[in-house]
Amino acid sequence: METKRSFVCDYSEGAHPKILERFLETNMVQCPGYGFDTFSISAKNKIKEAVNDQEADVFLLCGGTQTNSTIIATMLKPYEGVVAVTTGHIAVHEAGAVEYTSHKVLTIPGKEGKMEAEVLNTYLKAFFEDGNHDHMVFPGMAYISFPTEYGTVYSKKELEDIHSVCRKWGIPLFIDGARLGYGLCAHGGDVSLGDLKDLCEVFYIGGTKVGALCGEAVVFPHHGAPEHFFTMVKQHGALIAKGRLTGVQFDTLFTDGLYLKIAKNAVNLAIKMKGMFLAKGYSLHMDSPTNQQFIILDDEQMDRISKHALFEIWEPLPDGRTVVRFATSWATTQEDLDFLDKII
Amino acid sequence: METKRSFVCDYSEGAHPKILERFLETNMVQCPGYGFDTFSISAKNKIKEAVNDQEADVFLLCGGTQTNSTIIATMLKPYEGVVAVTTGHIAVHEAGAVEYTSHKVLTIPGKEGKMEAEVLNTYLKAFFEDGNHDHMVFPGMAYISFPTEYGTVYSKKELEDIHSVCRKWGIPLFIDGARLGYGLCAHGGDVSLGDLKDLCEVFYIGGTKVGALCGEAVVFPHHGAPEHFFTMVKQHGALIAKGRLTGVQFDTLFTDGLYLKIAKNAVNLAIKMKGMFLAKGYSLHMDSPTNQQFIILDDEQMDRISKHALFEIWEPLPDGRTVVRFATSWATTQEDLDFLDKII
Amino acid sequence: METKRSFVCDYSEGAHPKILERFLETNMVQCPGYGFDTFSISAKNKIKEAVNDQEADVFLLCGGTQTNSTIIATMLKPYEGVVAVTTGHIAVHEAGAVEYTSHKVLTIPGKEGKMEAEVLNTYLKAFFEDGNHDHMVFPGMAYISFPTEYGTVYSKKELEDIHSVCRKWGIPLFIDGARLGYGLCAHGGDVSLGDLKDLCEVFYIGGTKVGALCGEAVVFPHHGAPEHFFTMVKQHGALIAKGRLTGVQFDTLFTDGLYLKIAKNAVNLAIKMKGMFLAKGYSLHMDSPTNQQFIILDDEQMDRISKHALFEIWEPLPDGRTVVRFATSWATTQEDLDFLDKII
Amino acid sequence: METKRSFVCDYSEGAHPKILERFLETNMVQCPGYGFDTFSISAKNKIKEAVNDQEADVFLLCGGTQTNSTIIATMLKPYEGVVAVTTGHIAVHEAGAVEYTSHKVLTIPGKEGKMEAEVLNTYLKAFFEDGNHDHMVFPGMAYISFPTEYGTVYSKKELEDIHSVCRKWGIPLFIDGARLGYGLCAHGGDVSLGDLKDLCEVFYIGGTKVGALCGEAVVFPHHGAPEHFFTMVKQHGALIAKGRLTGVQFDTLFTDGLYLKIAKNAVNLAIKMKGMFLAKGYSLHMDSPTNQQFIILDDEQMDRISKHALFEIWEPLPDGRTVVRFATSWATTQEDLDFLDKII
Repeated sequence: METKRSFVCDYSEGAHPKILERFLETNMVQCPGYGFDTFSISAKNKIKEAVNDQEADVFLLCGGTQTNSTIIATMLKPYEGVVAVTTGHIAVHEAGAVEYTSHKVLTIPGKEGKMEAEVLNTYLKAFFEDGNHDHMVFPGMAYISFPTEYGTVYSKKELEDIHSVCRKWGIPLFIDGARLGYGLCAHGGDVSLGDLKDLCEVFYIGGTKVGALCGEAVVFPHHGAPEHFFTMVKQHGALIAKGRLTGVQFDTLFTDGLYLKIAKNAVNLAIKMKGMFLAKGYSLHMDSPTNQQFIILDDEQMDRISKHALFEIWEPLPDGRTVVRFATSWATTQEDLDFLDKII
Repeated sequence: METKRSFVCDYSEGAHPKILERFLETNMVQCPGYGFDTFSISAKNKIKEAVNDQEADVFLLCGGTQTNSTIIATMLKPYEGVVAVTTGHIAVHEAGAVEYTSHKVLTIPGKEGKMEAEVLNTYLKAFFEDGNHDHMVFPGMAYISFPTEYGTVYSKKELEDIHSVCRKWGIPLFIDGARLGYGLCAHGGDVSLGDLKDLCEVFYIGGTKVGALCGEAVVFPHHGAPEHFFTMVKQHGALIAKGRLTGVQFDTLFTDGLYLKIAKNAVNLAIKMKGMFLAKGYSLHMDSPTNQQFIILDDEQMDRISKHALFEIWEPLPDGRTVVRFATSWATTQEDLDFLDKII
Repeated sequence: METKRSFVCDYSEGAHPKILERFLETNMVQCPGYGFDTFSISAKNKIKEAVNDQEADVFLLCGGTQTNSTIIATMLKPYEGVVAVTTGHIAVHEAGAVEYTSHKVLTIPGKEGKMEAEVLNTYLKAFFEDGNHDHMVFPGMAYISFPTEYGTVYSKKELEDIHSVCRKWGIPLFIDGARLGYGLCAHGGDVSLGDLKDLCEVFYIGGTKVGALCGEAVVFPHHGAPEHFFTMVKQHGALIAKGRLTGVQFDTLFTDGLYLKIAKNAVNLAIKMKGMFLAKGYSLHMDSPTNQQFIILDDEQMDRISKHALFEIWEPLPDGRTVVRFATSWATTQEDLDFLDKII
Repeated sequence: METKRSFVCDYSEGAHPKILERFLETNMVQCPGYGFDTFSISAKNKIKEAVNDQEADVFLLCGGTQTNSTIIATMLKPYEGVVAVTTGHIAVHEAGAVEYTSHKVLTIPGKEGKMEAEVLNTYLKAFFEDGNHDHMVFPGMAYISFPTEYGTVYSKKELEDIHSVCRKWGIPLFIDGARLGYGLCAHGGDVSLGDLKDLCEVFYIGGTKVGALCGEAVVFPHHGAPEHFFTMVKQHGALIAKGRLTGVQFDTLFTDGLYLKIAKNAVNLAIKMKGMFLAKGYSLHMDSPTNQQFIILDDEQMDRISKHALFEIWEPLPDGRTVVRFATSWATTQEDLDFLDKII
């Protein structure tokens, strides 16, 4: 199966070649463990620079689910839950990792994967203003992903509005950036890496899906990390002994702007890909400006294309057709697109 | 600090060069995520071969603490705790990761880091035979590390005795093999990788401290994995999206016996190192047959040696001297030892 | 405030007088603790008789939320969650007690507070048959309340259908009977206490809201209690030292059919009360056949009635009117109704 | 068995008669639920008076284990554990209820069931001052019981010393008062109820074992309750719907000093009982000044006495004899002692 060209996801290949190079160069340097190595320290400094916040607390974790549950569990009080849209990754596809830490995911309806400031405000207002809710889980944080699970993105204004609602009701905003790069490079998007420090209380810069083998860089702007976060990362099983594993990768991704270059290239190719599908008369399920494209296929198309390329089955439609996902990554090339163009 | 030669631990350097080579070779191969890649599948097959159990269930996780807490939490029933010696890693140095999963670590006294079958038997007999203990935590698993936190190892007979006690009382035995290779290559040791399948219900083959950048291979002999272990690994935040990260590493470590070669080399050099210290009149704190050596230094010796080499402070002695640890790894060479010999 | 006649809920008064009498009579009898007292044993035997299952495992706990979370947490496997309707008590009004035990409440839409067999089946079928859901929480139990939070009840046929769906997909059904008596005595209802043993894997007989000061009797039909449930009750903080507290109460409630007599009287009065409201032209929010009646009031009516009687504000309606609840209990009398009739 | 005179424990009988009287008198008063009833409010006011702290936050819970785990879980931060002596109730006999809330019980050696300030200080100093312990569970609270599980008590000076150590290292002190009354009335004791507010950050006044059917009154001096403690009590399943159950009981116990009268009577009789045993040449295991007496019996004595009276087997001694416990309660009379005197 793996000999067909795959557009299944953005984690099909290994790491960006510069990362592997850097592993080779640095391999024999002896370092302390647990994130106190030269490379992690350097990576964190470069990230502070990139997010334009010298006071940011930065931690390098290994994977998305562990990062989500560690952040949420360490920022919530015991009587609080986290508010997400019903399609949010933590609400659906993390095997209950948040609940495993004893906290409820409180869901509100979203739109194309996005949370709407007004809906959030209505929910929080009803909880905090209308009557007594002492028998209910307190909303203690809002969680959004950028881009969302559907590839959609928030405008800066939309993030400001959500953040403003959060501050109004006194809860932190957490932006899951498992695919942050693609969100920042979204076509028509206006959010930059330097903006985030003022738009939320914590976010992470996803590495796994943007060119690394693994790794997520958690950023708490303005020294906002929970006290003893390091120990809680250990407690959650998310502390890496050879911290250089993530240190070297993020140090490389944040040298010469590699992180955003990777993301930009993938997004550009995805937009071209969308154009290819549209030119041949295919319909979009959702108009995504990022590296994931959601196309509607009928059975004949499914069969035909899947003979030569791999893609992800997303969901069936009532009319019998199917939504599928084609994704690009750091490794996708114009050649891959030319190939795809011939077989769709 | 990092310019001094370091003997601090066995995770000071990166990965064994063959692992990096293999990352380079395989980087562009497109694979499914979450452990269904070619390399993980191949690694698992080679591990089944090496542990001499075609029916073993093998899972590749990322780090030691997450592996310990995931195994323990998924094998215990809610009313059970895990029995360990008071110096056991899970009882002391994992920030309460086991308790975080709602289970108690029940401690019994050990000897040089090891659990004694007789002590375990006395404990379990008292619990299960003498009177009613329905208000107490049930012992539901025994945990030992091989080698122990003090570098000591069990003989095959000792493991058989402990396992026999466990079976007598109906609880599984879990062997934490974060440094398994060094235990299997211990001087004077008689336990082989193929023996383990009959000596416990679950063990893991530590990669992080034996030549990998990260990774622990969990082995449940005889199809003994808990039902839906995969989902629980995800729930614990221990599932890696790019499964190739651990797949490629274990595939390499289990090609041409590399895993044990790495371990053997490190142990051999450690034994030589011990000889060097003894020859110059130093005392040992414990006579370790593995890659960690525990030497007693006085203040003058500490000062002198630490000008040229790094080592780990272990614990102060009542007489004012200090126990320190010198460790070897895949990267240690005869040259390093020659250097050390001159400065001690 | 407490001098006005209250119809706020069914736990406004103390215990049924026979319970207090029995406390007096038995007070000096010396008994062992933790449920091994004469009265608890007798109560359990009477309950086995009443539920028509000599093999039932019966446990006496103290309150509803602790009973729900203890049952759910001890019957689910770690990777499982409990399915409830969105208005289910555990999903909304128990402060996240289920999530506190690390399990997710999975919600599906309900109808007038009730779960529909077909909706449950669709949900379970989608999970277990359509594709792989290893990254999601497994549905491991269905939870319904009888009567529901809205006073509505299931017919025997409806319970059979839900139970049949559960068995088809291999998950247990749990019936929360915090107000079980009122459900069994519902006007037009056809479910009897003896039926329940074949309609679910666990249910409880609520005491607190049906004449006791506290206490819920958990029944696992056919020796179906989880292993070491006693110890887990202790672990959840739900084990009472003076087991006679619940023992005496349930022994009394299950002597001479008192439990159902209490329930029947309250339901009969509630139905009369409903008739009174209807006769004066009030509208019902929902046509409840049990001891809770949901009436729609406009502001003038609210003001007027609340001068003389207490009731519970349920929820505002879009048209500006308000749904309120009037409840009867073991202590409600015809005199109370006559009084109410004059002021509405 | 229950026809023999029992000295097994202090929860063998029902409630003090005044409590039952009061239940009868108040039974028809209609009240709001969940602790907002007249009686709970009155009880809390009387308790504030009795503990001499008008700013105390008082909550009425139902049983000891739930009170311990709720207090500990809500006062600790996620990375913290609670320090107790190895014989502490939470460390041994609560089925892991504290660990169930994800927190470790950190044990230090005790003496006759008591914690020693110096031992605690050594432990805390080693943790907070000597080196880095970021991979370990932080001590976040000290837990002692008063009286201890062995019936022994602390002097005021001893409590001041422990509290002083706690304040020095910045952690709260929690006094488990499941049998508080007996401790306050201990022969030779010098701690009064009014002292406690300055000796710890939280304590509870045990009702279950001092004359009530159930109930523990938690006191956080000086408005020290954790934020939203009410909701967390609910989350832990420890909130009682008919709050009058504990309200009426504590209101009665704190009227006319009944609580201390009950305790004083039981302690006085226990001291007489001790004198009786000593007069006949029996040995004490420990010289307890409270209502529990620990006597050493040989087999002949065990057999003989147990024909007429019940007592608790405590633990076997190496010489073949047995430590047993004789306890007095609110219901013990001089007549019971006269009876015992004849058969020992």
